[in-house]
Amino acid sequence: MTDFHMIRAASIRAGGKVRCTPLLHSPLLNAAAGRRIYVKAECLQLTGSFKFRGAWSAISAFSHAERKRGVVAFSSGNHAQGVALAAQMHGIPATIVMPDDAPRTKLENTRAYGADVVVYNRYKDDRDAIGIELSRNRGLNLIKPYDDPEVIAGQGTIGLELGKQMEQEGIHACDVLVPCGGGGLTSGVALALEKTAPGFVVRTCEPEHFDDSARSLAAGERVANSSEFSSICDSIVTSTPGALTFPIMQRLCGNGLVVSERQVMSAMRVAFEHFKLVLEPGGSVALAAALYSPSLQGSDRVVVIASGGNVDMDLFNTATKAHPEPYCRNSDP
Amino acid sequence: MTDFHMIRAASIRAGGKVRCTPLLHSPLLNAAAGRRIYVKAECLQLTGSFKFRGAWSAISAFSHAERKRGVVAFSSGNHAQGVALAAQMHGIPATIVMPDDAPRTKLENTRAYGADVVVYNRYKDDRDAIGIELSRNRGLNLIKPYDDPEVIAGQGTIGLELGKQMEQEGIHACDVLVPCGGGGLTSGVALALEKTAPGFVVRTCEPEHFDDSARSLAAGERVANSSEFSSICDSIVTSTPGALTFPIMQRLCGNGLVVSERQVMSAMRVAFEHFKLVLEPGGSVALAAALYSPSLQGSDRVVVIASGGNVDMDLFNTATKAHPEPYCRNSDP
Repeated sequence: MTDFHMIRAASIRAGGKVRCTPLLHSPLLNAAAGRRIYVKAECLQLTGSFKFRGAWSAISAFSHAERKRGVVAFSSGNHAQGVALAAQMHGIPATIVMPDDAPRTKLENTRAYGADVVVYNRYKDDRDAIGIELSRNRGLNLIKPYDDPEVIAGQGTIGLELGKQMEQEGIHACDVLVPCGGGGLTSGVALALEKTAPGFVVRTCEPEHFDDSARSLAAGERVANSSEFSSICDSIVTSTPGALTFPIMQRLCGNGLVVSERQVMSAMRVAFEHFKLVLEPGGSVALAAALYSPSLQGSDRVVVIASGGNVDMDLFNTATKAHPEPYCRNSDP
Repeated sequence: MTDFHMIRAASIRAGGKVRCTPLLHSPLLNAAAGRRIYVKAECLQLTGSFKFRGAWSAISAFSHAERKRGVVAFSSGNHAQGVALAAQMHGIPATIVMPDDAPRTKLENTRAYGADVVVYNRYKDDRDAIGIELSRNRGLNLIKPYDDPEVIAGQGTIGLELGKQMEQEGIHACDVLVPCGGGGLTSGVALALEKTAPGFVVRTCEPEHFDDSARSLAAGERVANSSEFSSICDSIVTSTPGALTFPIMQRLCGNGLVVSERQVMSAMRVAFEHFKLVLEPGGSVALAAALYSPSLQGSDRVVVIASGGNVDMDLFNTATKAHPEPYCRNSDP
């Protein structure tokens, strides 16, 4: 199980390879939104999302003998690119199993990072069988996207940076809003802050119809989303919180926040105008919550993790043209 | 005249107020472009451009008595916002003289930073007369956009950061490409690097038809642009290099680089895809030169200053949809 020492160890292994991302704020946005909003710009991480941290942590934690056998991951998105680059930088082979209908850019990028991409038909093929076969035949190490202690530790390195950066701002307590899929980022950041900056409370942020974490936290057990909906927030859509991540979230997180797709698109526009950042929909749910969630009434400051920026240009252009939503203002910051 | 000690003093006065911007690179882009490209993401500076540095430096250098009289600046763009915010943060009044046909967002933002905006009709009114009257009647301190020793010193703080960041990358010599209008940024960065990292050579980057710096450097004297052209790179379009900046550029800079508008738009798209950054046209000329200029043949690494991101959404969407230009490749990085 991931603990603080594993996060610190992951941080040491990451030194000089994983980027320390900046913490941004915008005086104009603060005035307009009625609270101080600090944005941890993790879209500026290598591969365009925080997933590179977990991948680097997992690969760098293997023994030399394990590592040289190579790694395998299942992903159509950010985890794929994170594992592919981390493997390339370690000089070891990576096999990424992706659906054949994954966006062409993501397939191309994953190959450009040197990975062997194995495609499958998601309606006909058994993905797990492919994985077991690859793992057996080639002896590859499977790197799961969130339910892996070293992956959680890697994502937790964001929490270490955040604690220091907020201390420089002179702020020792507020909510930390985290885009939440399986909970690797959420639980890692919560574990890091628990020890280094215990005044901060991590809160999950999810798009409507995919609020499994918020509902699981409220229910005290892992509950699943209905499968009848789709979401533009593809990078953080999971059926339930992870088996390893949920107990950590349950122990450390506040109530979950939920935002609409319109609010997500509006937050992408705010990131464009006020932060000069490109965010993908899944990467902007926490900023959306900071701007539009009535549950934050009374908070005069908040930290937001902007977790990724891998978005198709057409979707970005559509989102940023959407009519902006009105802020859910607090008092003046 | 600006010297290294003024830059260091400006850096000390800037501590905790001016943002140290990150130095980014993209493994995928490096492989595609055939050279290592380091991007100093100054679009992430407060107000969305490097101009805040010069404004902060100038205002913080005034004596208490001078400062409280307030400041005035002429600008329709980034300098206006930089001076307005720096004045607001110092708690002093700012008057910004802007043409009445300036983009609405820029007028609104400048007012939102607390400045008193005085508009004039650029076809009927005498801008200089307005300035002299304001300066006399209200006793305001004029902050020029580039021909001011303290403004140059403020822009030079980017060079101090860059020297340290490149040392961490283990790189001690290469070209540093700088978007160049009046030359405040170029000359400040060149002065800072001369003392801290003398292996680096600053080179001006300009859009076609506005290559007054490149031509002036070649001619050995300040020459002007023709007034018959317009450019999407509004933030760096000036008639000639500055009287104070040019001698510094002449002493320290290499040959200037010139790029086309198509290359500028293509570089904006590259910044979107590979760096998750929003760049304005004027802010992406150096990246365009790094990607497309045949003059860099033989360079296996280069530093680029991405100087600003204040771009209208429609122009951004148009630019990022433009067909990408082919890279002018070097060997493999």
